[in-house]
Amino acid sequence: MPRFYFEDFSVGQILPLGQVTLDSAAIIEFATRYDPQSFHVDEKAAASSPFGGLIASGWHTCAVIMRLMCDAYLLDSASIGSPGVEDIRWKKPVRAGDTLTVQVEILETRPSRSKPGQGSILTRVTAVNQHGEMAMTMESWCMLAARSAA
Amino acid sequence: MPRFYFEDFSVGQILPLGQVTLDSAAIIEFATRYDPQSFHVDEKAAASSPFGGLIASGWHTCAVIMRLMCDAYLLDSASIGSPGVEDIRWKKPVRAGDTLTVQVEILETRPSRSKPGQGSILTRVTAVNQHGEMAMTMESWCMLAARSAA
Repeated sequence: MPRFYFEDFSVGQILPLGQVTLDSAAIIEFATRYDPQSFHVDEKAAASSPFGGLIASGWHTCAVIMRLMCDAYLLDSASIGSPGVEDIRWKKPVRAGDTLTVQVEILETRPSRSKPGQGSILTRVTAVNQHGEMAMTMESWCMLAARSAA
Repeated sequence: MPRFYFEDFSVGQILPLGQVTLDSAAIIEFATRYDPQSFHVDEKAAASSPFGGLIASGWHTCAVIMRLMCDAYLLDSASIGSPGVEDIRWKKPVRAGDTLTVQVEILETRPSRSKPGQGSILTRVTAVNQHGEMAMTMESWCMLAARSAA
């Protein structure tokens, strides 16, 4: 049985997800496959871009944050996926070597009207870099089975 | 010189991005690294999940769509990254072997007030599966340099 069901999340709850560092090899590897814009894959081109150096694809940042969410609670939860994301803000470039400290706040918990026995939680994710700058925010939904239905 | 600058996008424009197929090996590979929930990485567990079979991580779907956007126009554009995403809706599971037909519509073009010589375009992305079902929608921003500034 998973540890976390829908009922285990409550508005205002803060879940620290820990830290993740994106190095240039990982940035280039991800972007070569999924987002090969020059400032994500080519150190030299990136240096002469408006960013002044290599930066991670925003989708790479989302992916590594998803992994932190999995490791912190989703893999031990009754998660049944996500209907979507309310917004993502890539506020500061994530540069090679940056370390992001990530946390989740529960903004809303909504029992399903159409499917009793499950509900959705709205989470606000924040990722702060080692300079104390907010690098990314996201509001995203997660659907979970309810313990009452298990 | 890139082919596409800010001025080259106009509201109502439709950009077909082509198709992408997600097979089970690719689904499992991506999810093993970034989103190892059982219904993304384990065929057997997925079969007995509410999804009834392996489905792609929503972040994987975003990543392969980003690649289509790159190949269709971003790599030959004056793109200077993205400030964010207005929303993502994962409407139908993307199952192993599904083929998505993806297109972009330009919803808005907004010259920068603070930085003359650049602007942002708001795009609506739709991904329709081989059954004609809308699998995913997204509204996302892209910043571009203006030709007038080049």
